Amino acid sequence: MGGADFDLIVLGGGPAGSNAALHAAGIGMKTALVEPGFLGGTCLNAGCVPTKYLLGASACLPLLRAQRRYKVAQGETPFDFAALQARKERYIRGARKALQKKLEQAGVTLFKGRGVFSGPQLVTIRGSSLETKLTFFKCLVAIGSIPASFPDLKPDGATVCSPASILNLLDVPKSLIIVGAGAIGLELGELLHRFGCNIDLTEASSRLLPREDPEVGAALYSHYARQGWNIHRGRRIRSVKTVDGRSVLTFADGETLTAETSLLCIGRRPATAALTPEAAGLAVKDAGWLDSDAYLRCSEHVYAVGDINGRMLIANAAEHQARYAVEHAAGATRDPYRCDAVPSCIYGGMEFMRVGPTAKELLGEGERVFLSKAPLAASPVAQSSGCIRGFVKMLWTNDSLRSVYAVGHDVSHLLTAASLLVSGQMKKNVPLPLIRAYPALDEVLESAIAAPLQSVEDDAC
Amino acid sequence: MGGADFDLIVLGGGPAGSNAALHAAGIGMKTALVEPGFLGGTCLNAGCVPTKYLLGASACLPLLRAQRRYKVAQGETPFDFAALQARKERYIRGARKALQKKLEQAGVTLFKGRGVFSGPQLVTIRGSSLETKLTFFKCLVAIGSIPASFPDLKPDGATVCSPASILNLLDVPKSLIIVGAGAIGLELGELLHRFGCNIDLTEASSRLLPREDPEVGAALYSHYARQGWNIHRGRRIRSVKTVDGRSVLTFADGETLTAETSLLCIGRRPATAALTPEAAGLAVKDAGWLDSDAYLRCSEHVYAVGDINGRMLIANAAEHQARYAVEHAAGATRDPYRCDAVPSCIYGGMEFMRVGPTAKELLGEGERVFLSKAPLAASPVAQSSGCIRGFVKMLWTNDSLRSVYAVGHDVSHLLTAASLLVSGQMKKNVPLPLIRAYPALDEVLESAIAAPLQSVEDDAC
Repeated sequence: MGGADFDLIVLGGGPAGSNAALHAAGIGMKTALVEPGFLGGTCLNAGCVPTKYLLGASACLPLLRAQRRYKVAQGETPFDFAALQARKERYIRGARKALQKKLEQAGVTLFKGRGVFSGPQLVTIRGSSLETKLTFFKCLVAIGSIPASFPDLKPDGATVCSPASILNLLDVPKSLIIVGAGAIGLELGELLHRFGCNIDLTEASSRLLPREDPEVGAALYSHYARQGWNIHRGRRIRSVKTVDGRSVLTFADGETLTAETSLLCIGRRPATAALTPEAAGLAVKDAGWLDSDAYLRCSEHVYAVGDINGRMLIANAAEHQARYAVEHAAGATRDPYRCDAVPSCIYGGMEFMRVGPTAKELLGEGERVFLSKAPLAASPVAQSSGCIRGFVKMLWTNDSLRSVYAVGHDVSHLLTAASLLVSGQMKKNVPLPLIRAYPALDEVLESAIAAPLQSVEDDAC
Repeated sequence: MGGADFDLIVLGGGPAGSNAALHAAGIGMKTALVEPGFLGGTCLNAGCVPTKYLLGASACLPLLRAQRRYKVAQGETPFDFAALQARKERYIRGARKALQKKLEQAGVTLFKGRGVFSGPQLVTIRGSSLETKLTFFKCLVAIGSIPASFPDLKPDGATVCSPASILNLLDVPKSLIIVGAGAIGLELGELLHRFGCNIDLTEASSRLLPREDPEVGAALYSHYARQGWNIHRGRRIRSVKTVDGRSVLTFADGETLTAETSLLCIGRRPATAALTPEAAGLAVKDAGWLDSDAYLRCSEHVYAVGDINGRMLIANAAEHQARYAVEHAAGATRDPYRCDAVPSCIYGGMEFMRVGPTAKELLGEGERVFLSKAPLAASPVAQSSGCIRGFVKMLWTNDSLRSVYAVGHDVSHLLTAASLLVSGQMKKNVPLPLIRAYPALDEVLESAIAAPLQSVEDDAC
């Protein structure tokens, strides 16, 4: 592909970057990957993998709590949080090494350093000692995002934590203020609460997960309120400060909360600061997200994939974009990028999952939307866990299944089956092409398919 | 449908009978259901539902054990088994009542008593006080099966138990001999072992689950052996006797095992004893299973569905047959009965699942069979649980997916997605029509799809 140093230079070694590099090398492109930090990005090192690891390893705790409530289980179960953290670190370290080996075996050239544009087809790599200039035929920017904070507040990883730094605590704080009730705030609050941390959850919106069906937020609210969280909804925040070694949150109305630690889950911002995108003629928008066209291109030679393009800040969407961008860069496709149904999911004792658009999004397309619903409580499996609250809902337009979402214990396990049903454009009242196992939580999917339809109006979602 | 008392008389109120009655009433047939015992049959009262309820309620125990092994969890967690049994009984009682209400609301006439044939279209119902004769246009026999025992050995529900009676113990025996290492023996052994019962497992075959891929039995064997079970494979049994209030098993070679209780999981036999099938001109085969044709008919007017026809002794297959038989009886279909993929599944700390034929069955059809395989250990979710052993395997013929099976922690959750992939006749190397959640155990399905194929030979399965 010409006389450049590399056919493809990938900036960033997270889910998007490493998958792009593997795929490019696999189809014969001479590929470099440039990463200043750890391979694996936020997902592996400070995001979904360590969070899920810690939640998975402590999954017994909410189950035990349910059985204690019913006087079936007795006594306490002390957990050694530092020992768990050590196990998690060992696992992450191993996964990082395995990723490096995989990239090297695939023939990807790895550069440790920060990639900075110096021209339309030129990157300068700034490592600890060296500075290297490399030309490329195509470049894929996948440098991700970093946790947002308040102006003039720099999390210290102790009294004020980012989602990344709180995952490294060796001691469980006695009390925690969580700012922001999105997926990350809920998962990390669930995790620390399992180990005895007292939770204050604050959210500017009047409900949890404000983008979702109000019944979803209401179910999560009552779940967390029931287990003793103090939840402050519809409250604007004036400041978060450290006073005498403790974290003090002040609401706009002057009321304060005090805790050992605060956790800021107020979104993420692009990691474009040191990229000098203008040197390659790339445009940025809003807070610095790279502007990309229908082909995920920022210029003739440069693609932006994953968080950095500001489209969807989630690892699985990043991987999907990365694969497409490599195919497009290699000339294997000319179609614009298309992504139908990115599943979202919140892990924990009471989980949330959705695949397909929200009712609001479907109504926005001018569709007539119908809903069917089944409660988890009808399933012997849900009954057995002692966690029976929750439901599966399905959205239909023109008798075709468009979305499936659910809240409740273990509902994340329904996601792949739900995705296959949505992508198969299943019709209402057509039996599933399978015999399911019995009993299994999945029977609630069947019940939702068979449930009567009700029309969805705009003011109800 | 003529001058009979009922369009359809259903004998037996288990999964097959109650679903048949509900479906028949729903399409306007005048329907009666005759059941001498509890509605819900073995499945609800003495089979999969109570077993899964007890396994689900104690699912925290193997997870805790894993974390104790890693020195993350500490201490003991006493469980009150009798309190758990009381909860289970309450749930089953409620589910039974709900089923009765559902049948009554659907317009099904319920008879408490044993249905006995008195002619080709005549049933006598023998209740505690009354004897009623009823004519039918069609009859559906769904009276199920009962646990088999050795000749001259009648389980007393204490020293010698059937799978049904052991589910009612209020105390966990200190030691248990399980005769037969099929799904039921493994699930019940897993359950009682969680509460501290010492297990001796005996199996006449040289491996566990002899119908499955040898790697499946080997993985289960090493799992149970590792947790301290004494497993006796390839050993024939001479007798099981009660001696001085303890259960004594004698192998064919004279060696003995002694335990507080024995559990006989040596198959099931048909419940035809009191049916007098000959009065309706029905033929029985082998030990008394009702002979049925390609339409599940035993005669012009009588169908046999569920266990009693001896085809597949599993509740979900029974329900599927029941629905078909009602459709056929009502004239809504003329096609022969067809059932592609009945999923099977063993619940527990290390689970098994399969949907689609075994390799042996495919080879028997003269197919060239290929296999792909992915280990669970690559999934962060498997790693987090501390239970990393196991795998997903897929069988392919002519590049089409025919079967998926797996062993490992939580693999039963993959069953519906796997069933949809098999019924969709997915092709090798075609990407899944979805973006999956990350991390999730389901990624092992994707890995197995992408894994290299190896040819399967007859002597390896």
